[in-house]
Amino acid sequence: MGAEPRTIAELGRAFRGREVTSSSVTEECLRRIDERNPDINAFITVLAENARAQAQDADRELAAGLDRGPLHGVPISLKDLFDLEGTPTTAASRVRAGHIATSDAVTVRRLRAAGAVIVGKTNLHEFALGTTNEESAYGPVKHPLDPSRSAGGSSGGSAASVLAGMAFASIGTDTGGSIRIPAAACGLVGLKPALGEIDATGVVPLSSTLDHVGPLCRSVEDAAIVFEVLKGTRPSPLDARSHEPAARAPAEPARLRVAVLGGYFTALLDSEVAASFERTCGRLRDAGVTVTDAAIPHAADISAVYLHIALAEAAAYHAATLDTRASDYTMPVRLRLEMGRSILAEDYVRALRGRDVLRQEVDCALESVDALLLPGLAVPATVLGKDTVRIGDRDEPVRNIMLRQTQLFNITGHPAITLPCGTTRGGLPISAQLVGMHTPDLLCVAATLEPSITTHA
Amino acid sequence: MGAEPRTIAELGRAFRGREVTSSSVTEECLRRIDERNPDINAFITVLAENARAQAQDADRELAAGLDRGPLHGVPISLKDLFDLEGTPTTAASRVRAGHIATSDAVTVRRLRAAGAVIVGKTNLHEFALGTTNEESAYGPVKHPLDPSRSAGGSSGGSAASVLAGMAFASIGTDTGGSIRIPAAACGLVGLKPALGEIDATGVVPLSSTLDHVGPLCRSVEDAAIVFEVLKGTRPSPLDARSHEPAARAPAEPARLRVAVLGGYFTALLDSEVAASFERTCGRLRDAGVTVTDAAIPHAADISAVYLHIALAEAAAYHAATLDTRASDYTMPVRLRLEMGRSILAEDYVRALRGRDVLRQEVDCALESVDALLLPGLAVPATVLGKDTVRIGDRDEPVRNIMLRQTQLFNITGHPAITLPCGTTRGGLPISAQLVGMHTPDLLCVAATLEPSITTHA
Repeated sequence: MGAEPRTIAELGRAFRGREVTSSSVTEECLRRIDERNPDINAFITVLAENARAQAQDADRELAAGLDRGPLHGVPISLKDLFDLEGTPTTAASRVRAGHIATSDAVTVRRLRAAGAVIVGKTNLHEFALGTTNEESAYGPVKHPLDPSRSAGGSSGGSAASVLAGMAFASIGTDTGGSIRIPAAACGLVGLKPALGEIDATGVVPLSSTLDHVGPLCRSVEDAAIVFEVLKGTRPSPLDARSHEPAARAPAEPARLRVAVLGGYFTALLDSEVAASFERTCGRLRDAGVTVTDAAIPHAADISAVYLHIALAEAAAYHAATLDTRASDYTMPVRLRLEMGRSILAEDYVRALRGRDVLRQEVDCALESVDALLLPGLAVPATVLGKDTVRIGDRDEPVRNIMLRQTQLFNITGHPAITLPCGTTRGGLPISAQLVGMHTPDLLCVAATLEPSITTHA
Repeated sequence: MGAEPRTIAELGRAFRGREVTSSSVTEECLRRIDERNPDINAFITVLAENARAQAQDADRELAAGLDRGPLHGVPISLKDLFDLEGTPTTAASRVRAGHIATSDAVTVRRLRAAGAVIVGKTNLHEFALGTTNEESAYGPVKHPLDPSRSAGGSSGGSAASVLAGMAFASIGTDTGGSIRIPAAACGLVGLKPALGEIDATGVVPLSSTLDHVGPLCRSVEDAAIVFEVLKGTRPSPLDARSHEPAARAPAEPARLRVAVLGGYFTALLDSEVAASFERTCGRLRDAGVTVTDAAIPHAADISAVYLHIALAEAAAYHAATLDTRASDYTMPVRLRLEMGRSILAEDYVRALRGRDVLRQEVDCALESVDALLLPGLAVPATVLGKDTVRIGDRDEPVRNIMLRQTQLFNITGHPAITLPCGTTRGGLPISAQLVGMHTPDLLCVAATLEPSITTHA
């Protein structure tokens, strides 16, 4: 019998080798939730009884030879923006008090059909409008490695639940970086697929044209497994092909070309992040990867384009509740939404044009390479309760710094994935981000480069 | 030798039968411009020398057996929003004073490659923001059948130029009905293709997500010929296939199903228009067409959705010149643009959601039929200088009434075509409109039904 399974892929092999059962693994996740959630605050709702029943079903089906594929029997968590029939979708907000979902989100239906075991709904930055998880009606999520720090956000509970061994993966949403930022802060793999690739029906929206659904997990292979289930492209559960590995076979690193995004994307980095990222580029070169440089000429406009689109769309969704129950929002989230209400259509339309320009510039940067490479997060996990973070001799607003590396690809819709690439001297994770043209190709590139990027040295 | 060619298709046969030359036909168009344009005011710029040179080239090429297809040697006009290298694109506005285009619009390049003879640039409602052509730095276009009336708009000069025999077709733009409205008012065929189907690069925009490029001409077959050239899908000029007829072979009327859009679309009609439309439906039934009913449940929201999108996008384009030279706009156009500047992004985003709903409703109405049928224009050509029009016992604003039948399909992007279906007792044209899912299919349906719809009785 091998070591304790760490990834979904390893767990699947252990299930099929009869080394462990879904029930025993699910019990272990529930035990860790009992033990650590009171401190970490990763979950808003724990679904212990449901999870046990789903795990028993999975064990029974697997024993009977009914194999639903690589997620069958795997404990996962859901960001509390996803509708799960019969449970509240709180969005971490008092505004949603009393809500009970009357049906499953499309992605939840797909996860169920794939046999996943849903252990609970995770905490988040209220309505996903923030990067630290500090504004939540259920209190902040604490970083599992250091409770004085944020696990990142908005999908902070999702990241913490996976890092703390409470689930093997979590399903999050990413409007400006809300999957990749907490994945980076917690040393996980976070995938934002291409825009519109995964059906978001039944997920509370933040900004309808920027929202993406995707997984946080422990390896690129796992990200590929969950991605295919979320996308709904896996063959039917009883199809023999469903047993094939989900990730494409890795390519040769020496055949890959990667362009490092400079300028804006390396201008404001924590010194340990910058050094770790430099070493990561070095390891890629050592592995034979062709590493070149690329730039986004209008990078200085990213934040303005993003804010006009994101806040205007969020304001449109929240207009009615801002009118009737503004005091149920946490104050910082309310103020950001109110700001969105005064954006002019003329400026929104201009931002849409900026979006087209930026999309063309990312397309152009990708023209002769397999992926773009940049840091996933400019700083290590930030200290809870502080609005600014020190970079060199400057204090920068936490929110701006955290969105800086990620929001461009919500604007342009390109798929992006963050992978751990090192740790600070204090042991906090540091992350690299790859960006591509098509998600399956990006997953293949990321799987190929993962051994060079993710070192535990 | 047959009768004088009336359509592009007839003209093509006459060219190839050596009955007429492009030069002689072009001279005749120029003669009519000389004779009638001082009264009708259809043209802002007449390109007599260019047209003569192009016609001579066409005659030389045709004589030498170099056949560029069905537009070769055909005199056409261009709405003065299309860039034609070396000439001003006035948009009928003093704001554009001094402009000279430095290259051709994509569609103009395609027309040139197809051998079309461009006789001039036509008058329009300033910046295409209106339906009557009354607000133009170059004065209103007069209806060729009655100079006290409007030729419709915004492509009013285009429609008048074709009706008055100054060109065989004209290229217009349609943001809320600006091709179909003047085509209807002038008894022509007007085609608005599907959204995005024809490249609008080099055309002055009105509202970037509602603008369409298309032809005004004298038959459905002609519309199909021009559409294929504009779309750029015709085979290369020297390819043998370019001699095939452009329109698909008509189907059997008895195999076609058409749904009449009721409610909103027949609630406010001039009594002669209503009666003529009823008779048209009767003739279709007589021809064996299955005629059913359909409705758009959210039709009452069309105007609000349209205005928020159209005016916000127009304001974004005009913001700079509204700041610096507002007095160069005609006052009504300026006031509409200024209104667009105060629309909130929140309301624009809400309008985009309404757009999705309306698109689904039109899709749904089309589900089991070949086309939707409705009047093309609620009233006959309106009297110049009057802001309202009498319908029954009510005075209605001209602009609202004229957009009412057409703007929905700019919002939804479905292709739509207007065909003459009768005349008033005073001899003014009345029009029917067909709407489909795909332009080539719609052209086929329209060609099949044209003999039943368009009667000169």
